[in-house]
Order: sequence, then C-alpha cells, then structure tokens
Amino acid sequence: MNEATGATSPEAAVVSGSDLVDLVAQQLQALLSAGNYDAVKMLLHPVQPVDIAEAIGILPRTLQALAFRLLSKDEAIEVYEYLEPAVQQSLLERLRSGEVLELVEEMSPDDRVRLFDELPAKVVRRLLAELSPAERRVTAQLLGYEPETAGRLMTTEFIDLKEFHSAAQALTIVRRRAPDTETIYSLYVTDGERHLTGILSLRDLVTAEPEARIGDVMTRDVVNVRTDTDQEEVARAIQRYDFLAVPVVDREQRLVGIVTVDDVIDVIEQEATRDLYAAGAVQAGDEDDYFQSNLLVVARRRVVWLAVLVVANGFTSQVIAMNDDVLKHVVLLAAFIPLLIGTGGNVGAQSSTVVIRGLSTQRIQALGRMKAVLREAMAGGILGLLMLLVVVPFAWWRGESLLVGAAVGISLMAITTLAATAGAALPLLFDRMGLDPALMSAPFITTATDVAGVFIYLRTAAWLLQQTNGIAF
Amino acid sequence: MNEATGATSPEAAVVSGSDLVDLVAQQLQALLSAGNYDAVKMLLHPVQPVDIAEAIGILPRTLQALAFRLLSKDEAIEVYEYLEPAVQQSLLERLRSGEVLELVEEMSPDDRVRLFDELPAKVVRRLLAELSPAERRVTAQLLGYEPETAGRLMTTEFIDLKEFHSAAQALTIVRRRAPDTETIYSLYVTDGERHLTGILSLRDLVTAEPEARIGDVMTRDVVNVRTDTDQEEVARAIQRYDFLAVPVVDREQRLVGIVTVDDVIDVIEQEATRDLYAAGAVQAGDEDDYFQSNLLVVARRRVVWLAVLVVANGFTSQVIAMNDDVLKHVVLLAAFIPLLIGTGGNVGAQSSTVVIRGLSTQRIQALGRMKAVLREAMAGGILGLLMLLVVVPFAWWRGESLLVGAAVGISLMAITTLAATAGAALPLLFDRMGLDPALMSAPFITTATDVAGVFIYLRTAAWLLQQTNGIAF
Repeated sequence: MNEATGATSPEAAVVSGSDLVDLVAQQLQALLSAGNYDAVKMLLHPVQPVDIAEAIGILPRTLQALAFRLLSKDEAIEVYEYLEPAVQQSLLERLRSGEVLELVEEMSPDDRVRLFDELPAKVVRRLLAELSPAERRVTAQLLGYEPETAGRLMTTEFIDLKEFHSAAQALTIVRRRAPDTETIYSLYVTDGERHLTGILSLRDLVTAEPEARIGDVMTRDVVNVRTDTDQEEVARAIQRYDFLAVPVVDREQRLVGIVTVDDVIDVIEQEATRDLYAAGAVQAGDEDDYFQSNLLVVARRRVVWLAVLVVANGFTSQVIAMNDDVLKHVVLLAAFIPLLIGTGGNVGAQSSTVVIRGLSTQRIQALGRMKAVLREAMAGGILGLLMLLVVVPFAWWRGESLLVGAAVGISLMAITTLAATAGAALPLLFDRMGLDPALMSAPFITTATDVAGVFIYLRTAAWLLQQTNGIAF
Repeated sequence: MNEATGATSPEAAVVSGSDLVDLVAQQLQALLSAGNYDAVKMLLHPVQPVDIAEAIGILPRTLQALAFRLLSKDEAIEVYEYLEPAVQQSLLERLRSGEVLELVEEMSPDDRVRLFDELPAKVVRRLLAELSPAERRVTAQLLGYEPETAGRLMTTEFIDLKEFHSAAQALTIVRRRAPDTETIYSLYVTDGERHLTGILSLRDLVTAEPEARIGDVMTRDVVNVRTDTDQEEVARAIQRYDFLAVPVVDREQRLVGIVTVDDVIDVIEQEATRDLYAAGAVQAGDEDDYFQSNLLVVARRRVVWLAVLVVANGFTSQVIAMNDDVLKHVVLLAAFIPLLIGTGGNVGAQSSTVVIRGLSTQRIQALGRMKAVLREAMAGGILGLLMLLVVVPFAWWRGESLLVGAAVGISLMAITTLAATAGAALPLLFDRMGLDPALMSAPFITTATDVAGVFIYLRTAAWLLQQTNGIAF
C-alpha cells in the first residue's frame, strides 16, 4: 500500500498515466544515452513508482538495467514490484547477483511470491536458497498456500501489539516498526500463543489517552478470514465493511498475515475481467497479457471454446437436416430460424448475465435460488409475449402464410421461456456443483437453446402442416 | 471509510454476510417483539454497521424504526448510511422530525448527497432548508456537480494543515479533528488561498521528528483530480497508485474535497456490472435493484434491446426469404445457417469482449487502435481456418454434396474474419464518437454479422450452383 503519499508531474491536474509515462520514457532514453545521470535522478524524483516502472518497461533492454541502477535503494524495490514479469526477469539476468539478492531480500513477502510465481522453477530454487533464513521461511510458507487464497494474497509484515501495552508504548512500537510494515493503520493484538484477540486502528490509537491500555481500547470481535479463504471472498469482506485491511488466521486462529485494500482492488478487477471474458467465451488467462501475447496464443485461448460451440451447433444442423422434408414443403420456414434462435439466445444471455452477476454480488443468495429461476422463467414468458405482437404479423406477411406465422408465434413463446429458464438455472447448477458459473455464460446458453429452439419450431410446423393439410412428417 | 476497525459475531472465522444477517434479523425480531430492549443492545453491540443495516432492512416495517431508535447516536448515523434507499425513506417518514434532522445533519456530506439523490425533490428541499447553514452550503455545492464525477463522489471532510506547522502541532490538529473527518491517514497542506501545495500521510507525520516543519516533510508534487473528472478516471488513479485517497481541486487548483478508496471500490464494481450487463444486452439500471424490482420493471429493462435485436434479425429473415429459390434448389443448405451465423457471432463476441475490456483497462490505448483491429481481424482469419478443418468435412457429409461443403467453407472464412473485424472496430468507433463502447457488445455484433453472414453464404451457394449447374439465381 502506498501510504507515503504521491507525486507526479506538477501540471497534471488529471492523472493521465499513459501520456505521462510516454513523456518520461522519451526523456529518460535521451538522458541515459547522453550519459547525463544526474538529470535522470532529477527527472525521476517527482514521478510515482508505478509510472517509473512503466517508463522503464518501454526502454530498450540495454538501457533498462542502467536506469534501474540510478534509483535509490528504497525506490528500486518499489519500482521493481511494479515492473511487468518479463522486465523483472530480464533485469534479474542483467543485474549482478549481489544486486539481485539485495532486491529480492528486501521485497515485501507477498510481492516476492508473485514474482516467484512467474519465474522458472530453477531460478526460484536458487533465489530461495540465497535468501536470509527469516525471509526464506516466510516465502516458502506463502508459496505453500493454494493460489487465489487469502494465504497467497496476504503479507506477513504487520504490527502486532499486546493487550498490556499502553497507548503511548504502542505508538512507540508503531513508530519503530513503520519502515518495514506494509500498513501502520490497522494494528493487531495477539496473546502469548499468537492468537488474534483484538484489533485497533491507528486512528483509535492516536485519539486514545496515552496511558490507556490497548486491551481496553481495542475491538474484540474481529472480522477475519482464513488462509484458505478464496480471494474473491476476501475482497467481498473488505468491500462490504469498508476496511483498509483484514487479518488472516490459520486453523488454530493464530494471526499469520493481513490482506490490504490495494491488493483487493486488483482482485475485484481480475474477477470482473474473468466474468466478462467468460461471457465472451474467451479463455481467462493473465488479464494483462491479452494484447501483448502473439496471435497464436490468442487463437489458442479462443479456439477451444469455439470448437465446443461448433460441435454444439453441429447438433442444430442435425436437427434441421433431419426435418428437411418439412422445409422442402414450406421453404420460407427457413427464413425465421435465425430470428427465433437469435431471440432465444438473447433472452437466455440476459438471464445468465443477471444471474452470474447476481451470484458474484451475492444478490441471488439473498433472494433464494429457486425464486430467482422462477422469476427469470416468468420474465422469459412475458418477453416472448411482448415480442409476439411484432414477430407474428411480420412472419405471417414475409412467410406468405398463416401457418408460418403460427409456427413462429408458438415456438417463440416456448423458446424464450425455455431460454430464460436455462439461462438462469444452468449457472446456478454449475455454482452448486462447485464449478465456475461464468462457464455457463451467454455463448453456451445460446448454443444450447439453439438445438431445442430449432426442434420446437420445426416440429410445431410439422404438426400444423399435419393438422391443416393432413401430411405426416 | 471504516477506520474504526470492525467487529462481528465471535465464531465467524470466515465472514459470511448473508447467513450472519439472517441470524441477527431473526433474533432482533424476537427480542423486539418481546420488548427486551437491553438484549437488543447487547445483540447488536459486536455487529458491524453494514450487517445491522441489512438486518434492519429485513425486519417488518413497523419494527424498523423501533430497532433503529435503540442504536447509539454515532451507530445510528453509520447504520443509516448503509440502509437501502427504500428503508431510508420509510424511516424518514416514521421518525420524529427532530430525529430526522439530527440524523441528516450528522451524516457525512457525500452520503447525504447520495441519500438526496434518491429522495423526492420536495423532501430534499424541506430537509435542505432545515440543515445548518454550513451543512446546507456544502450539500448544495456537492449537488451542483454532475453525477458520476469526482465532485459528486468526494467528501469535504478532510484535514488540511499549513506548511509552517510543526509535526507535533499537526498531530494535535489531527487528534482534535479526527472525530469529524472521514480519514486521518491522508493529510493535505494548503496555502492562504486554499491552494493545495502538498500532501503527507499520517505515517509520514508519525515517523517525523516532532519539531520538523510540515513544509519540509510533505510531498510537493501531488496526484490530484478535478471536480469534473469522471468517476471511472478517479478510480483508475487510486487503483494505479495504490492510494487511500486522492485530493479533488477546482479550476483554480483550490482543494475542495477528497475521494477515498472505499468509494472507489464501489465505482469499480459498478462499472464492471455495467460492462457485463451491456455484454448481456440488459439495460444498466441501479445494479442493486435487479433482483428486488418487480417483473414488469425487469421486462422493461430487457425488452428495449430485445426489440432492437428482433428488428435486426428481421433483416436476416429478409435476406433468406429473398434467396428462397437457392434454398428450394438445395434445401440442406438451410441446415448450416445456424452453425455459420452462430460461429460468426461467437468469434465477434470474443473480439468485442477483449476490446471492450481492453478499453476499460487502458490496454488498447497502449497498443494503438488500428493495431488492435488488425490483430483481431487476423485472429478471426486464423480461427476460421482452424474450424474449416472440422466444419467442411461435416457439411460435405451431412449436406450430402460437395457444393454445400464448399459454400460452408468459403463463407465460414469470410464470416469469421468479418465478425472479428466488426467486433473489434465497432466498440472502438463508438468510443471515438464519445459513446459507451459496451453498447456495441456481443449481442449487437452477433446480430449485425448475422445479416452479412447469411448473405455471403447464400450468394456463395448461388454462385457455386451457377458455376456447376449453370443456373442463375
């Protein structure tokens, strides 16, 4: 968390990251090429670490290590944590091993684990072996937690106090430990066995009487998460309670770390991207790299779902081909297949969208699952009814027969109701089975209801033809 | 921001909002009905304000005011800010006017403005007239800013210091003003004309020497936003720089307020819901109320887009009906229409999804728009080529002729390339025109490419029939 507040180019009333970064990168390259290192330091002084990191990322590889070495030690560590994984790796190769070790040793444990996740296993083993015992232990511990859990997201650098401390003593401890903790605004109270017994904020501490006992000032009932709590649930807790940090405990209720709000914002963003990508049938990878990765990687992330959908569409083709004698009889029936399955698909997509989002934002859980499905089914019926008013006259006229109009009308109602029901029920079913409900998003609902929709339409038409003309299909 | 850290039911290792709330609501209702008010106070003491607010929301209307009156004054204000707008309104009607006034007077200005946004104009005018002059002035000022800007999101309760203050003096000011400011962790330094000249964190202040001058400790180059900055841009700034708050200045660079990280999380969530709803062709309303609102409201929020899509699908029907003589000749061509337009739709949906998300996360801007469209067009071509390998043999066999296989193959390539190009270009075009790119999401891309896809397919088939059989359509 960036508690040391921020600096950027003086005139920028509105932060405009990419323009600023481009400018800094250009000037940086010119000054480095000219060997004017003092000017580089002056240039970078008022710039935020994240902007410096991006500017360095744009530089030619040969200049990156040079620019990086001109940063002060503290600045270098912070900037390094913001660099893209590829740049981090290339710097590891270009810096001297002493420089690398100092850097990795000084990173905060959670950022170090994120770096290690990206590095080749061989490099990680070497770096781990060279870390100080304390940092090695904590890093190995964090790496031991499942990805996307509180244990992976947390930092182990927090301030813990004891109940018998006075407020004045506590403030001295906070002052002393401020340089190497991620936040000093949330303070934790533990007993002799490291069990979390209470929590207080720096606000509480600063406004307390100097002689007050921490045990009397702190809050005893603490919202906390476990090391194996899913990162999305951690994010929800911080968001719900407007916290700056949430404590993480192990199975024995011992305090082992904290998750801060800045990491949670990234989780919320990442989960939103994942839902949105799923809604578009794009396989979720590392969000950041889609526009960086080459076209074959892009194709690979998309072709899997497309292939699944093509096979599903193959069934629709089968259903139509098996009913080709109906079509031969009234070829204009074919003209309304896209309209019917398109509308069914859109209604289903709407239902799955609101249900998937409702699951994410916990609204569905509050309403009840059965009730949500029922609501959507009824909404589907109502929407089908409303569209009948336009679609049936159009089909009657353009299909050049009442039979086409009637077949379109009857099946439209059936398709929209079915699509809305499936669109609501399938994500909920997936969620119950412990699978990601977003997998049952729009494209899948669409394709699944296509088969049923075409079947209903053509069989309705066949039945109507039989009733009116006495032909059996 | 909830800087006074939090409490919840003792055993809850993992926060599970809705279960906890249900339990509290049940006990609350039983105790209130029994008239056991002391027990109510004990029950609610360790519960977080947001959970109390939800529990009160579940109670029967008649008990809501009763429960609310049992809260301490500070607690009542915090709980009130978390209540659903409908519950807030009904409480306004049930509380005595003195109680209402005290409540509204004590709310923080940003929460008050959010409440006023929901209330009928008549009620707002009456309440405004009864506020103290200071609170009325600040509320009217905030209401004057455009919705969804920094001005609307900000709070005017922040701590400002002067450069000549010593650190010790500043700490005394912080202690004194802590009770009525939203955050004490970000501190602002202004000159005689209220111009923002610097910023420092409580961390900086606590670790500074007591006699140090604020002017020497503070950071001079400050990231700030303007009152008219869009809320999404404000959120990006806080997210990018991992800030806890960002200062808001007016046109003359005078400091008028701050936006804190907790409000920004809600903005990020709201924008993600909006993008996702757009992707599902659901009209974005107030995110919170979808599962609360009645079915006719739901239908209204969905039927508009459906109607637009039905009209668009009508064009597809037109194209097919106009080419019915081609279909009459080879009726099995109809079997592959859903497969072709479905695949085109899915490829287009993928492209629009990654482009819309890329615009939100600023990745597209970094890559360049033309380059992004070109990439997607090539990806569409590659994906079409990959699917040819499966689809053409299937169409050849199931369509019972090489002609169907060839028509499907040629048009598949054309359709996927076209869909990917349109899927990437249309959101970018909308963005350039100042419209919301999410409006050009999957359902629209799908429906738009349907018309073109069917046209390409049937004209290709007609052309092939002419080449092989010499028939002109």
